[in-house]
Amino acid sequence: MSRGLYNMGLLHGADYNYEQWLDSPELLDRDLLYMREAGINVLAVGIFSWSILESTEGVYNFEWLDGCFERLHQNGQKIILATPSGSKPAWLSEKYGETCRMAANGVRQPHGGRHNHCRTSVKYREACVRINTKLAERYGTHPALILWHVSNEYNGMPCYCPQCLAVFRDWLKDRYVTLDALNAAWYTTFWSHRFTSWEQIFPADHSIHGLMLDWQRFTSDQTIDFFLAECEPLRRITPGVPITTNFQMPDVGLDFHKFARHVDIISWDNYPEWHRSPDDEPAAVKAGFFHDLCRSYLHKPFLMMESSPGATNWQGVSSKKKKGMHILSSVQAVAHGSDSVQYFQWRQSRGGEEKFHDAVITHLGSNDTGIFREVAETGRLLKKISTIAGTNTESRAAVVYDFQSGWALDNAQLPRNIEKNYQKECIAHYGAFWKAGISCDVISPEYTDFDRYKLIVFPMLYMLREETAKKIRMFVQKGGAAVATFLTGLVNESDLCYLGGTPGNLTCVFGISVEETGTIADWETVTFQMYGQQWKAAHYADHVRLQGAQALSGFAAEKNPAVTACKFGEGTAYYLCARTEQAFTDRFYRELCEKHGIPPCVSWEIPAGVSIQKRGDAIFVMNFNSVETVISPGEIYEDMLRGEPVCGTILLPPYGVCILVKSSSGEKKSEHQSNSK
Amino acid sequence: MSRGLYNMGLLHGADYNYEQWLDSPELLDRDLLYMREAGINVLAVGIFSWSILESTEGVYNFEWLDGCFERLHQNGQKIILATPSGSKPAWLSEKYGETCRMAANGVRQPHGGRHNHCRTSVKYREACVRINTKLAERYGTHPALILWHVSNEYNGMPCYCPQCLAVFRDWLKDRYVTLDALNAAWYTTFWSHRFTSWEQIFPADHSIHGLMLDWQRFTSDQTIDFFLAECEPLRRITPGVPITTNFQMPDVGLDFHKFARHVDIISWDNYPEWHRSPDDEPAAVKAGFFHDLCRSYLHKPFLMMESSPGATNWQGVSSKKKKGMHILSSVQAVAHGSDSVQYFQWRQSRGGEEKFHDAVITHLGSNDTGIFREVAETGRLLKKISTIAGTNTESRAAVVYDFQSGWALDNAQLPRNIEKNYQKECIAHYGAFWKAGISCDVISPEYTDFDRYKLIVFPMLYMLREETAKKIRMFVQKGGAAVATFLTGLVNESDLCYLGGTPGNLTCVFGISVEETGTIADWETVTFQMYGQQWKAAHYADHVRLQGAQALSGFAAEKNPAVTACKFGEGTAYYLCARTEQAFTDRFYRELCEKHGIPPCVSWEIPAGVSIQKRGDAIFVMNFNSVETVISPGEIYEDMLRGEPVCGTILLPPYGVCILVKSSSGEKKSEHQSNSK
Amino acid sequence: MSRGLYNMGLLHGADYNYEQWLDSPELLDRDLLYMREAGINVLAVGIFSWSILESTEGVYNFEWLDGCFERLHQNGQKIILATPSGSKPAWLSEKYGETCRMAANGVRQPHGGRHNHCRTSVKYREACVRINTKLAERYGTHPALILWHVSNEYNGMPCYCPQCLAVFRDWLKDRYVTLDALNAAWYTTFWSHRFTSWEQIFPADHSIHGLMLDWQRFTSDQTIDFFLAECEPLRRITPGVPITTNFQMPDVGLDFHKFARHVDIISWDNYPEWHRSPDDEPAAVKAGFFHDLCRSYLHKPFLMMESSPGATNWQGVSSKKKKGMHILSSVQAVAHGSDSVQYFQWRQSRGGEEKFHDAVITHLGSNDTGIFREVAETGRLLKKISTIAGTNTESRAAVVYDFQSGWALDNAQLPRNIEKNYQKECIAHYGAFWKAGISCDVISPEYTDFDRYKLIVFPMLYMLREETAKKIRMFVQKGGAAVATFLTGLVNESDLCYLGGTPGNLTCVFGISVEETGTIADWETVTFQMYGQQWKAAHYADHVRLQGAQALSGFAAEKNPAVTACKFGEGTAYYLCARTEQAFTDRFYRELCEKHGIPPCVSWEIPAGVSIQKRGDAIFVMNFNSVETVISPGEIYEDMLRGEPVCGTILLPPYGVCILVKSSSGEKKSEHQSNSK
Repeated sequence: MSRGLYNMGLLHGADYNYEQWLDSPELLDRDLLYMREAGINVLAVGIFSWSILESTEGVYNFEWLDGCFERLHQNGQKIILATPSGSKPAWLSEKYGETCRMAANGVRQPHGGRHNHCRTSVKYREACVRINTKLAERYGTHPALILWHVSNEYNGMPCYCPQCLAVFRDWLKDRYVTLDALNAAWYTTFWSHRFTSWEQIFPADHSIHGLMLDWQRFTSDQTIDFFLAECEPLRRITPGVPITTNFQMPDVGLDFHKFARHVDIISWDNYPEWHRSPDDEPAAVKAGFFHDLCRSYLHKPFLMMESSPGATNWQGVSSKKKKGMHILSSVQAVAHGSDSVQYFQWRQSRGGEEKFHDAVITHLGSNDTGIFREVAETGRLLKKISTIAGTNTESRAAVVYDFQSGWALDNAQLPRNIEKNYQKECIAHYGAFWKAGISCDVISPEYTDFDRYKLIVFPMLYMLREETAKKIRMFVQKGGAAVATFLTGLVNESDLCYLGGTPGNLTCVFGISVEETGTIADWETVTFQMYGQQWKAAHYADHVRLQGAQALSGFAAEKNPAVTACKFGEGTAYYLCARTEQAFTDRFYRELCEKHGIPPCVSWEIPAGVSIQKRGDAIFVMNFNSVETVISPGEIYEDMLRGEPVCGTILLPPYGVCILVKSSSGEKKSEHQSNSK
Repeated sequence: MSRGLYNMGLLHGADYNYEQWLDSPELLDRDLLYMREAGINVLAVGIFSWSILESTEGVYNFEWLDGCFERLHQNGQKIILATPSGSKPAWLSEKYGETCRMAANGVRQPHGGRHNHCRTSVKYREACVRINTKLAERYGTHPALILWHVSNEYNGMPCYCPQCLAVFRDWLKDRYVTLDALNAAWYTTFWSHRFTSWEQIFPADHSIHGLMLDWQRFTSDQTIDFFLAECEPLRRITPGVPITTNFQMPDVGLDFHKFARHVDIISWDNYPEWHRSPDDEPAAVKAGFFHDLCRSYLHKPFLMMESSPGATNWQGVSSKKKKGMHILSSVQAVAHGSDSVQYFQWRQSRGGEEKFHDAVITHLGSNDTGIFREVAETGRLLKKISTIAGTNTESRAAVVYDFQSGWALDNAQLPRNIEKNYQKECIAHYGAFWKAGISCDVISPEYTDFDRYKLIVFPMLYMLREETAKKIRMFVQKGGAAVATFLTGLVNESDLCYLGGTPGNLTCVFGISVEETGTIADWETVTFQMYGQQWKAAHYADHVRLQGAQALSGFAAEKNPAVTACKFGEGTAYYLCARTEQAFTDRFYRELCEKHGIPPCVSWEIPAGVSIQKRGDAIFVMNFNSVETVISPGEIYEDMLRGEPVCGTILLPPYGVCILVKSSSGEKKSEHQSNSK
Repeated sequence: MSRGLYNMGLLHGADYNYEQWLDSPELLDRDLLYMREAGINVLAVGIFSWSILESTEGVYNFEWLDGCFERLHQNGQKIILATPSGSKPAWLSEKYGETCRMAANGVRQPHGGRHNHCRTSVKYREACVRINTKLAERYGTHPALILWHVSNEYNGMPCYCPQCLAVFRDWLKDRYVTLDALNAAWYTTFWSHRFTSWEQIFPADHSIHGLMLDWQRFTSDQTIDFFLAECEPLRRITPGVPITTNFQMPDVGLDFHKFARHVDIISWDNYPEWHRSPDDEPAAVKAGFFHDLCRSYLHKPFLMMESSPGATNWQGVSSKKKKGMHILSSVQAVAHGSDSVQYFQWRQSRGGEEKFHDAVITHLGSNDTGIFREVAETGRLLKKISTIAGTNTESRAAVVYDFQSGWALDNAQLPRNIEKNYQKECIAHYGAFWKAGISCDVISPEYTDFDRYKLIVFPMLYMLREETAKKIRMFVQKGGAAVATFLTGLVNESDLCYLGGTPGNLTCVFGISVEETGTIADWETVTFQMYGQQWKAAHYADHVRLQGAQALSGFAAEKNPAVTACKFGEGTAYYLCARTEQAFTDRFYRELCEKHGIPPCVSWEIPAGVSIQKRGDAIFVMNFNSVETVISPGEIYEDMLRGEPVCGTILLPPYGVCILVKSSSGEKKSEHQSNSK
């Protein structure tokens, strides 16, 4: 069994902005004590340190970082070292104006903020390679170094400078070869948009959807290209040190499915909005979705590189975590595949935009705070379950989540444009599995092998590549169960509508053809009957014709099918014609999983608000309710946290957690524990 | 009796973007069949075809359009040919940068979208004249051509380029001759705004209301001037072909009353928001208002150049039309004076911003759709009532709707600035006539001859030209009934306040003087008593002094008049001091019409939600209710659609229509039918 | 006893834009009559007259102003003469482009509006000095002139032109001397923001809070500097004429505490939003707060330079004043320390942005209006109480209101960012005193001597200067009662967080340390028990540790203190951990004032909605209720308005006022009256 990254068990760590405290050595001393007390075994350093590392062009200052490495190393902690490109120093913008981004109106953005660079700029890439080379040469062989953390939270904010535009036009030439092909793909006959030279193309015409979609693809590709340029000296000089970059939540203009193929270890920054309503289940489902997306990128464990030990400071209202929630939220990450619990940040900054973002050590400077106690408790807990590190989860069900289709759908002008809610819809389908205790991957239509699964859901897959349609056909043919919904397969990769019925190229697989996608006004009530009861639909409702499929249900008013099923080859293709209420969605997938042999990971009943996830041998039982909740396993388990067998009922406190393994392995389990340091 | 345009009866047609389908000849073939099946007799072509027609400067490509003309002609359809200026090709922007608009901040707008040209640019006007000349020369004598469709949906989006500013300053010199006169008109003593050279004038100072109003007038005038420049080669080369341009709904910065005087046939694009609430009556009243405005421009039948056969794709939520609504909405246009029912568009585009705007032939590509069936049914219906083409409606009542006053009111800073709602107020007054089955024109205070009417309503005519005041005085003097409301006659043509009491220059006609225009806060209840019951007022309530008028009602709390009437000469002038609730407005005009001898077009009772409009001999009965509604004519009519006499009660289905003519002409009617092809 | 400015008693006046009516001499004649009728004794002239005074560079035109001076002087009115810098003429912008402001994106703003000048521009300052010199030379010795009104409503809208940036960088050099000091103060180690040259600093990086705060300070300082440059010729040529400038409500980007130190007489423009809800008390409390702020700037009477005699025209909805409200609102100003009631403006303009802002003489042009009658009644009333002019109010309680801390808090990114509501919170605390009839100053933490007070409240004093912390410590030490709240003392003057517990540098004084500032979500109910009942808290709730303080109350759910008190030296320091509901706040201060010997100014009970303010000997009783309200003084008073003794109960009409003096001084009182001119 794998022991995770560098055989360290589960990581427990934080961003450490050591350089902010150089004038307070007594605080740095206290840090070392507190880190040990909190069970911290890894720190991410250097994330925004460029202006300290290279105070002016070519003048380097590594002594402080040397000191940081030595102190942490001697204190027993490992180091994740960042490259500093996430925020460039003012002298660089002053000297090389072209490193700043240009807005669509041609105005060069003034220096400021962070993520403020042109990702095409030759000068900026040179500067990054230079400083990354220095870092790799100096720290590449340091025994504390375990991982490169390249830049920070890349995003897809575009730059319209001449260098970017030139590279974009080259990218287009690669893709289309001729202007005729480009004009056809972008349907430029519409509104007289035909281009007769490459130079006429300027990526700010929102009425040419193909252009805007390609511009977003290019920006994402160019970000990956920039990342690879940053990695080049690291991979060359320190081939043994793996590379990550911390992904954000998936609404930042990057195709992380594609990006993921270029990193060694997936990591991401997790900031759920706990306590935004009395019911925390929706936030927990959403966090689970993002975790499972990260695990599904490479089908491997990942790192939770950042999370807040308390509240954030960049939301309208961010609640302090209620008692238990910190550990619950941390354990949830591990349950879904994270090999770490890491924080932004170790010590709260005295100044700057994030000075009121909670940290492990707050401005109070003490280990005698609620936050610190929960963090230290988390550290102890992670040690108890360290054998989980490196283990994986095999899912038989998956939900497809496609960044590019989401962009295309955002751009689309539809009969109903408000509450398109692509991501929300995907999470609604995912949530049905979450609640049923069935492990579910969140996958790419392009990169993921469909053969791993028995059931795949394609919610609102508006842009359906022709290749994907082929994969779906093959998947069902060979016995898979596919579920598609309204707004699936409307356009091809070029954002051109499929003619002759949707879902495009799949009408025979689903046995239906959509005549039109109707809208449901907010004042309207649209219902359908299934499982002996009446359900509601909202926002969208397709008018569908049966062409081989069977109607499982129909809309009350119009007698059109609401849900259909079609045998195709060895498998079955289901179609949900409308945005159904969550209770229906939950029921639908529970029935489907039973029918298609995808059992929950436990046989006992799962109360509302409780999440059950299996990873390796461990069964995580997580109570997202603000009240005590009882579960009744009905089998004998070993409780990994308390180290004793449990049977009969278990009383979970509010936001409580327990982690179980099958009890037959009593000896094996205690063996695990002896290993767990 | 006129047979309408080119003796064709009623037109049934659509925009036809033939050039988008050149690579799919089998679809073009099918189009011809489907058009015949749907009773399509006219197509509008070439609307955004510039980049195909002139692929680069001076290189023309007309073969495809020749083909289109031939095929349609042979298939029995007529053609409305567009000039392509609504969207210029990219090569034109690239070569002549000055053809792009400039924003107020001096930044030239990048090429993109549509309606993207400077209307002053000499280069652009030359290019338009060149292509229009080519079109006129090539197709001017083609037997299928019946009408020029110049450009598309002109609007008043301003351009601030040096050429526009120079022409604007010339326009000002024409209007004011001296800077002193301009300074006086614009009241530039306020805030030290006095101009001492023409070059100081820049039309972006929103604190000089006179300047902004003149800038809007100029932009509208310059748009008309551009239109006339486009028309010049057409009128010269094809003097026999009439000219239209499709107007939009009246919130686009153009004075359509003025524009209308320059076109041969009025046409407009009608996109009501059906089913936005459970009650469709408000949308129907609004559509009626716009139709009647179009009929009133020239007091002639018009064309409904565009409408959607289904939903649109540029609103937040656009509902598919419920069963019956398409025909109802189409018939409504004819009832109010349209000689056509036309669609955007014939075949749904595969790409581009409007690809999900419904079309007669959807992406499904079939005639076997609900949309196609309703369109074909509309085609059959239009044939049955083709004798209506060219007939007109004479109204004895009118509501004044003044674009320029609306602009001035929008700019005005009042004690109450939210919910000024000029257009909404005009529609509320118009709605009283609509519901009573009384035909009502929607007229210009400048161009319309008031003598046609017995009753004219001037709702919120904030800017009252001195000439208009004279016309109103004369109208009442000679026996007319005039109704004015709060916020009428506050300023003159220069946006200068009338001193000594409002309505300006008309206090003796109305026999009142407004001391102040009070505001009603949202939490306040203001009521008045009339017709033996209590009514509510909202938003605005004038404090009025009687100076000859009689108070018909007073506000409960303050004993000021709420409604007044004043005999003046042979007529009567009424004043509504507040924004009254709709039920009062409806009652008020019903009583007024009775008093002033303006009868409804039918004598029987009209149920709520049912619209009765008379055009020529035909009485249109239109049920905008979503439920069956019974009417009881109590006279014998001939049903034009069913071709049989009706008497007693008629059961109108939801969204149902019937068209009646007086039964005495039974033989005459069947004669009509034999003519109707 | 002082007789106020120039021994004139209370001033009653208005802005008089004489130059707008030069072509209507009959109206100017009528003005003189109406002014006398309304008891107007002062007019503010010349406020936006530059384009008339200097029609082109160096060409002056003073005849009209000479005439205005003469006519008013002979009519018995005094003059407040404005300098015209509030709006520069178009020729000045045309000739000296650099006098226009530059936006952050480097675009020079086009001429237009008002307040449209760069306050650093050398050319603009020269032009101002030139015209001010001319005005001082010509009118400085005119017997009618009593006061300079410099410019108009200065605000802190920034300019980013090169001149401003250069002066800003000099300002920074003065403040920080070295870049190292600046980098430390701004915490530029965060996000790699370190500056290595002064030229790198551009004040548009909102992620550097210290930079943005300094930029706001600079803009405020530079406005004062501009004001002083304007004053220089006035002070030199007319040393005997005092100077004011009309302040606005305190949300315009200026530190009026600092500005106040440079004017001779405070004046401000008061535009309460009466009748925005059925309950006028909140608006009355807010107006009282602003008045008391103005009185507290210099602890002297002030002038209410502007108010509307009716409605304004720049709000969403501005109600006409209900009967009585005009006099009530005017008397409120005097009760809180104003020596004047002045209006914008005398005669309503015919054109321009404010043409529908109510004025004493409306467009009707008559003295026979409700507005005029209320103004004239106000004039008579002011004469009756003219002895009040120059008298002052001594408060024993004060609320600290710090502009700079407000800016810092606005910039701050907190766990809860919505509804920070700094000003609203200060007004909530102030309101408790207002309702209790206890006079309360609104003071600066920097400039005000704390020794004047027994009780000082520091609501949400987020930025706590180290000097202020010392003052608070000393204040409590010597026996004062201090109240601080959540979000007090989080950062120092550089916006750097206090380490080791908040309120920063004051934990020992308050005997507490805040562990963390929690947020309360909108759906949460947080309560605490005190005075035998349960109260609610919202938005923010500190988690506090007792370190010497006593908990007066604790939160129900978590047992943390909600209210604490700590003896320190001779005094007591209270801490309110949460935003408490208003009823609690009212009760808390009522109890505190009783405990600390701060009695209300009357001993009898004050009904809700009634404000009692004492100024000199006079007790103002003001009924802000829309219904009759009874007060029962239980002592014998003389009624200054009716000139007769009152005892027992007094019936105040809706929006009614009475002004009482202690009855024992019956003779003295009538003596006052004979003096009152």
